[in-house]
Amino acid sequence: MFTDEYLGRMRLELRRGMVIIAVLLQLRTEHYGYALRQALEARGLDIDEGTLYPLIRRLEFQGLLTSEWREEDRRNKRFYAISTEGRAALKQLLTEWDALETSINSLRSGKAS
Amino acid sequence: MFTDEYLGRMRLELRRGMVIIAVLLQLRTEHYGYALRQALEARGLDIDEGTLYPLIRRLEFQGLLTSEWREEDRRNKRFYAISTEGRAALKQLLTEWDALETSINSLRSGKAS
Repeated sequence: MFTDEYLGRMRLELRRGMVIIAVLLQLRTEHYGYALRQALEARGLDIDEGTLYPLIRRLEFQGLLTSEWREEDRRNKRFYAISTEGRAALKQLLTEWDALETSINSLRSGKAS
Repeated sequence: MFTDEYLGRMRLELRRGMVIIAVLLQLRTEHYGYALRQALEARGLDIDEGTLYPLIRRLEFQGLLTSEWREEDRRNKRFYAISTEGRAALKQLLTEWDALETSINSLRSGKAS
């Protein structure tokens, strides 16, 4: 009864929360969209445009990112960076992440009791 | 504009995928629902009943868990354990998890490029 579709959905769920952390971490330095995507890919996180761009717009709407239009290489680009509120949120997400990581590693290495 | 509600939702997203991994890991040894909940809590994962019990029923429906009713301490309890398909799924989820963990750690420790 188990299908690849279920597994695909689970992997997606697993990625979703972590992608937010990755974006906030990377935007401690400002990037425009495409450069952000490349930087994350260089760290092994391949996120398609249809996922990444709506996500950064959402994070800006939520006040976690700031953005400004600027010309670079004769083209107008929108540069994004983490906001003060974004840094506070990132800190809390990393705390949660550390706790979850500890739990998973403990379950994984230990005997299931 | 950023509110605790957004952060709460993000933390939930982050947990959701990892809770599946935790449940599958713990059910390498069979448990009934309440004992599973206690075992996860002992590893630092506090999952309320309204989340955990629907999740294990869903995982069983998907074929990742098997279950059987058995009497213990004069009460009928439903014992859950990971299935063969569950083990295969867990392996793939852990592979994904390792990749994501590596990316996050790299972003976290390295300079944002």
